[in-house]
Amino acid sequence: MDAGTILGAFVGFSCVAIAIFMHGKPTDFLDLPGALVAFGGSFSALFIFFPARSVLSAFGMVKSCVFEKLPDPSTEIRRLTELALVARRDGLLALEERLAEIHDPFLDRGLEMVIDGLPREKIEERLQIELQCIEERHAVGKKMFDQLGASLPAFGMVGTLIGLIQMLHELDDPSNIGAGMAVALVTTFYGALAANLVFLPLAGKLEHRGKEETLLRELMIQGIVALAEGDAPRAVESRLKPFLDPKTHLPLAA
Amino acid sequence: MDAGTILGAFVGFSCVAIAIFMHGKPTDFLDLPGALVAFGGSFSALFIFFPARSVLSAFGMVKSCVFEKLPDPSTEIRRLTELALVARRDGLLALEERLAEIHDPFLDRGLEMVIDGLPREKIEERLQIELQCIEERHAVGKKMFDQLGASLPAFGMVGTLIGLIQMLHELDDPSNIGAGMAVALVTTFYGALAANLVFLPLAGKLEHRGKEETLLRELMIQGIVALAEGDAPRAVESRLKPFLDPKTHLPLAA
Amino acid sequence: MDAGTILGAFVGFSCVAIAIFMHGKPTDFLDLPGALVAFGGSFSALFIFFPARSVLSAFGMVKSCVFEKLPDPSTEIRRLTELALVARRDGLLALEERLAEIHDPFLDRGLEMVIDGLPREKIEERLQIELQCIEERHAVGKKMFDQLGASLPAFGMVGTLIGLIQMLHELDDPSNIGAGMAVALVTTFYGALAANLVFLPLAGKLEHRGKEETLLRELMIQGIVALAEGDAPRAVESRLKPFLDPKTHLPLAA
Amino acid sequence: MDAGTILGAFVGFSCVAIAIFMHGKPTDFLDLPGALVAFGGSFSALFIFFPARSVLSAFGMVKSCVFEKLPDPSTEIRRLTELALVARRDGLLALEERLAEIHDPFLDRGLEMVIDGLPREKIEERLQIELQCIEERHAVGKKMFDQLGASLPAFGMVGTLIGLIQMLHELDDPSNIGAGMAVALVTTFYGALAANLVFLPLAGKLEHRGKEETLLRELMIQGIVALAEGDAPRAVESRLKPFLDPKTHLPLAA
Amino acid sequence: MDAGTILGAFVGFSCVAIAIFMHGKPTDFLDLPGALVAFGGSFSALFIFFPARSVLSAFGMVKSCVFEKLPDPSTEIRRLTELALVARRDGLLALEERLAEIHDPFLDRGLEMVIDGLPREKIEERLQIELQCIEERHAVGKKMFDQLGASLPAFGMVGTLIGLIQMLHELDDPSNIGAGMAVALVTTFYGALAANLVFLPLAGKLEHRGKEETLLRELMIQGIVALAEGDAPRAVESRLKPFLDPKTHLPLAA
Repeated sequence: MDAGTILGAFVGFSCVAIAIFMHGKPTDFLDLPGALVAFGGSFSALFIFFPARSVLSAFGMVKSCVFEKLPDPSTEIRRLTELALVARRDGLLALEERLAEIHDPFLDRGLEMVIDGLPREKIEERLQIELQCIEERHAVGKKMFDQLGASLPAFGMVGTLIGLIQMLHELDDPSNIGAGMAVALVTTFYGALAANLVFLPLAGKLEHRGKEETLLRELMIQGIVALAEGDAPRAVESRLKPFLDPKTHLPLAA
Repeated sequence: MDAGTILGAFVGFSCVAIAIFMHGKPTDFLDLPGALVAFGGSFSALFIFFPARSVLSAFGMVKSCVFEKLPDPSTEIRRLTELALVARRDGLLALEERLAEIHDPFLDRGLEMVIDGLPREKIEERLQIELQCIEERHAVGKKMFDQLGASLPAFGMVGTLIGLIQMLHELDDPSNIGAGMAVALVTTFYGALAANLVFLPLAGKLEHRGKEETLLRELMIQGIVALAEGDAPRAVESRLKPFLDPKTHLPLAA
Repeated sequence: MDAGTILGAFVGFSCVAIAIFMHGKPTDFLDLPGALVAFGGSFSALFIFFPARSVLSAFGMVKSCVFEKLPDPSTEIRRLTELALVARRDGLLALEERLAEIHDPFLDRGLEMVIDGLPREKIEERLQIELQCIEERHAVGKKMFDQLGASLPAFGMVGTLIGLIQMLHELDDPSNIGAGMAVALVTTFYGALAANLVFLPLAGKLEHRGKEETLLRELMIQGIVALAEGDAPRAVESRLKPFLDPKTHLPLAA
Repeated sequence: MDAGTILGAFVGFSCVAIAIFMHGKPTDFLDLPGALVAFGGSFSALFIFFPARSVLSAFGMVKSCVFEKLPDPSTEIRRLTELALVARRDGLLALEERLAEIHDPFLDRGLEMVIDGLPREKIEERLQIELQCIEERHAVGKKMFDQLGASLPAFGMVGTLIGLIQMLHELDDPSNIGAGMAVALVTTFYGALAANLVFLPLAGKLEHRGKEETLLRELMIQGIVALAEGDAPRAVESRLKPFLDPKTHLPLAA
Repeated sequence: MDAGTILGAFVGFSCVAIAIFMHGKPTDFLDLPGALVAFGGSFSALFIFFPARSVLSAFGMVKSCVFEKLPDPSTEIRRLTELALVARRDGLLALEERLAEIHDPFLDRGLEMVIDGLPREKIEERLQIELQCIEERHAVGKKMFDQLGASLPAFGMVGTLIGLIQMLHELDDPSNIGAGMAVALVTTFYGALAANLVFLPLAGKLEHRGKEETLLRELMIQGIVALAEGDAPRAVESRLKPFLDPKTHLPLAA
């Protein structure tokens, strides 16, 4: 679970909530029609903009991004070095028993190809294609959240315009002006808050996670190829070490 | 028919309609001069910006994008493999009878060149040029809808300025202020809604469709070239498989 | 004459005019000091931004863009094929008599170099340099109109600020507030309308015209080089055909 | 002196001044605290953004840009051809007497290296490095004025917010509202006017001047290298001619 | 300590403070809930956008950027030339005694590798990787401050919306309108001031510092490699001189 995201969202919304509670009634900030326009409008536009499949997969990506931690590159290196040891000692087929312990589908698929004895060029090519797809999904996800970050304030303004137009037609009763305008502004508030506290930051998060995952997958591809070529455990380790952060890397090299 | 687009537009407009109907009269949101300025202005500007021919073709593209489904790549592979079988068994000329069943003009033109016995370099070159034109049309279409998405809010504001200026000259009668300002704001509402719920999302849709069609056309070019070279049906199939999504692709490869 | 531009501008301004005439007096939309600030300011800034020579040439480009039609590529191919026939039959010097009929200075200059017997590399190089200059002028023209499209709304706002500040100092007489504010807003209206209905679309038009002219000039360069190399008329024709739109091209090839 | 810049600024400010004088008192547009916030704030931010040295050099560049004319390329070609004649007739050392007449430090430094007999690769390399620095300075200058063009309206708004907040706390005396708000708006007026009439156009001017100077310096480098190689005057001239505008160039070539 | 940054910030805030003190009470500009929304919101969003580690490191970079001066390239050249003299005279191991005087960890690590006798390719490769990490950290830092510069005004607006909505629900007591609106506007003031006077300029500062540090580190890498290759002090000096500003460089070369 990504503590930064959870904490950031919690503290951010708390700051807003405190500002609301310190003065006036929180119910002043609830407005169903406004929420319908701001959120309903933005998400509907998203389904015109992107294929429905991509929209759903982007939300799945955010979930995995926040609640699942990527394995540490050094853990992954240790695992691959271990597998190289098994393969050296007991042969490639012995890897099959280990497959059950591996819950990462990418690594799993790679190892299966090694066990099936596919040539290493073939293995690398297929995994690279799969990696490209993962990268593209991340890019589409980032674009989608950037798009939400742009359209939420716009639909917020649309909702406020609706409220203002309705309020201006009822000016006869001056006691309603304030409340009417307040309700109209709530929609802009929804759009601006959701865009700036949720969707634009998530677009950044997805971009960063995409880079991290790409690095990890490339490490895995190199490790799997090393297994397919029958590298010794030490050779596997020294082949994968450059993927580590130099800070972590230098002490290892000493 | 693209369900996402239809549904997205339907739900989006419903959200806005509900917000309007829940409070006040819907007729408050009708304003003919405002619509004239917002839509008339934006579309007029479009005809200065782009050649008239491109504007019309862009709207045709949107229609085909929403109401016509692109054939599935795997269906197309099956069709081309079948044609390869026919060509192998009964000769290239036997393809002629099949032409009537093919309603895609691009594939049709390609097959005719194969039947006419044109050299494969010539066939590939001509189809590539045609594909470039298709891609450019998609790019111009996307640019046009992005342009509308930028000029609609601008003309909405122009309309609102007109309404405000007129209203401000009639301040003597204070009972008109509210209604005058409401009418003025309707134009901004039109511009913002049309841009964010229709034209900007359609620009995204066209971009995505363009990528999809390019992939499909490249698959077709490879298939047609394979036919021209007299490939066996199996060879055609394995040549076209890499165009499939790896998700679909991997089980096929097993 | 480019019908799209003329019609677009006419319909666009009519929409705005109708909205103005349907309600209130059109004189409410006339404000000399406002026009001074919006247009005087924007155009003055343009002369700081770009060299005076470029500014004037850009307006000349728009004029030629709207009132002069580029010759059709197929007409140009026919003309060059004809000239090739003349050169073949009567020798290069016979082309001299035809020069009087050619009103295009670019083609004219090219043919003169052919008649003078310059080597083809020299001819091509000089025409390419001239083409580069034409392209750069179009790019500067587009940038200038984009710049006007950005500074007109800004100066419109400057004018409105001036009007508001003046009006706010005369609040003692409340009957003037409305009219004062209306006059102030007219400048914003000028800036927004001129930018969105005239200058931004013209920037797009110049860009498109630039692409079209580049294509035509490249066709001419190929044709002139073919003449210099003494190609047969048929060879000239088949050399220039790929410059045609594939739609027009394919029937020709049949 | 660059007439376009001087005239542009003069006409632009005159338009604004006329609009101000035609109605109301010009003193309404003076506000010291507002000027402090808009200009003081923007220029202070500039010293955080860029190193102090770059800020000062950028203003020097604008001065030289407006008040010093770059020598004409054809004048420069004539001068270099003349120097080649001197070098041919009286030897490289005879150039030394001419140095006093040359007030351009770049050309001066180049000629000194020629007289000192440095190898031409060395001369070219050093002058290219110096040219790169000149180009980078122009790029930083442009960026700085673009930055001012963005931060001036922002600080204008900050000043207006200060004025509005102060005015809103004194609402008890309604006769002050108008004047208070007018004063508040003056800061926005300062920011918008300075950005759009001065700094953004100057950013464009610097960019254009940078391109022009680069071309001139490259011409000089070629000329100096030609001198170092002992080219004949005619050879120097024909080597430098391609740097001329083709319009000027073509008649020369005839 | 970077005088420009300190002075820029001091003068900038003074200008704003003077404008505030010249008229009205400074306490009108204090608003705790507003500060919570503007700053709390923006910084919370930052922790969703970027990994927590990067956020903290970016603030450390700003501190070092403002309070620590980078060594002068010419000082660094002198130091490396001196070390080359020591290495020549007393052998590489004699460098070990000098390590204590060197407080730069990058140079330190490089020299240690030289003393350990690592091959120069290895040394260069490792230092280049470390340099890449430094550059990336600077790029992330710049992006982070640009992000703050965009989200602070947005959260300022969110805070103002909260204040406006609360104030509009209490319109019954007209004497509160002014103060309520003033308080609401304070948040926008916070966001705009912090973004334009602090965070956007700091983004520029980080970018510039990043370039400077990259140059210095590359100079160090070259110097360390020269040491590893056993270059003579003079050779080290002439190898590093091109890293100097040509202005400083040219007199040295004379």
